[in-house]
Amino acid sequence: MGYSVMALAAVPMVQPGDDLCLIVQQSLSASDMQLVEGDIVVLAQKIVSKAEGRAVALDTVLPSPNAIELAAQTGKDARLVELILSESEEVVRAVRNVIIVRHRLGLVLANAGIDQSNVPEGYALLLPIDPDSSAAALRRSLQEKSGRTVSVLVIDSLGRAWRLGTAGAAIGSAGLPAVQDLRGRADLTGRLLESSELCVADEVAAAASLAMGQADEGTPIVIVRGLHFADSAQTARDIVRPRDLDLFR
Amino acid sequence: MGYSVMALAAVPMVQPGDDLCLIVQQSLSASDMQLVEGDIVVLAQKIVSKAEGRAVALDTVLPSPNAIELAAQTGKDARLVELILSESEEVVRAVRNVIIVRHRLGLVLANAGIDQSNVPEGYALLLPIDPDSSAAALRRSLQEKSGRTVSVLVIDSLGRAWRLGTAGAAIGSAGLPAVQDLRGRADLTGRLLESSELCVADEVAAAASLAMGQADEGTPIVIVRGLHFADSAQTARDIVRPRDLDLFR
Repeated sequence: MGYSVMALAAVPMVQPGDDLCLIVQQSLSASDMQLVEGDIVVLAQKIVSKAEGRAVALDTVLPSPNAIELAAQTGKDARLVELILSESEEVVRAVRNVIIVRHRLGLVLANAGIDQSNVPEGYALLLPIDPDSSAAALRRSLQEKSGRTVSVLVIDSLGRAWRLGTAGAAIGSAGLPAVQDLRGRADLTGRLLESSELCVADEVAAAASLAMGQADEGTPIVIVRGLHFADSAQTARDIVRPRDLDLFR
Repeated sequence: MGYSVMALAAVPMVQPGDDLCLIVQQSLSASDMQLVEGDIVVLAQKIVSKAEGRAVALDTVLPSPNAIELAAQTGKDARLVELILSESEEVVRAVRNVIIVRHRLGLVLANAGIDQSNVPEGYALLLPIDPDSSAAALRRSLQEKSGRTVSVLVIDSLGRAWRLGTAGAAIGSAGLPAVQDLRGRADLTGRLLESSELCVADEVAAAASLAMGQADEGTPIVIVRGLHFADSAQTARDIVRPRDLDLFR
């Protein structure tokens, strides 16, 4: 049993308003590929954000008093901090150079996932507005055009509490069982950090991340082929650990 | 650019004292495969533990007063709790049904990684004694027998602080850049939960975990082929976030 992970060649630079379905189709063609039944189409968060026009010019941001205070505390640009706060429900930890928040999507991550490395100087790129919806919309379009049942993931690189380095993780998901109950039992008390559930979506995200290569601008779309999961209505939101099961806040 | 992930067929049940190199070779043959340059050989923790004789009969365990108290607090078997404590440096969280520890290997995980699902009733399987050394030894043997440069990972499924479900993670590593600095800068303050480092070993572990299928006893060995990393002296121990960079203890 095996599967393959293929980065598409020749993905163009994505601009605000671009149709991601068309971009996936064109990139598949340029790679001499077609979608087959069960393919998982994985997109880097940055191209979804760019298509949605989520790049913000820092010059247009007016920091609040809260942002100015947190900027002084952490040594960060107050305008960036304002964006981080505007995207977040809660600051979880703040120390020198580090702001970890609970994002409005439920994700606990550094800097609200705001990326300054993949956008022009003076701009910051926010996470997509609703990556689960973006994944679902792209899935519908791709299925309509291709006639195949596929899944779609939107992924980002997330840090981890106790491990160095980031790993690919799903922030948007459509079609996959995001969190698969392996043993067919739903013991709420027992499942807390136990191993009865497998986060399929994050494992696929990590597998795709390896093929993307994070430093390479050119490969933000990956096809994962040969894994067969039952169709699921779960989303990446279902991966977020509910507050009452969170021991580390 | 792409790669493939293949689970080996017909891996035998591993017994204490078994030679893992021989088991990998036999399983490769049974799958009509040979190692090629750059292959990553990924083993599930359970077969390494079994080969090392790390299954313990609970009947032989005498719980300490500490273990008895923690067992009462969490509702767990006091003998299992004794094993958990004997494998750990520190109890990080303990609530009903859940004990999260810092393992002597540095890993923060539930139940010290002790598995009762893959061993006979009345037994518990501890993590390997030193999975980095196990990986390094297997790597040397496989390279000697095959004449190819390969990497070896020992993986387990770890829970995450803020996300449901487990994901494959590297607990032993030989040959891979475990944590790859993507941007060529080693800013200690900036790297804390930042995205300048990618945990290659955990991403490969997650990719391999998908091919293993956690419920399936039969596929604990996976070959990841087509990823090309520079040879590295890093180990899985290098993934462990040092205490002074840990904001969530």
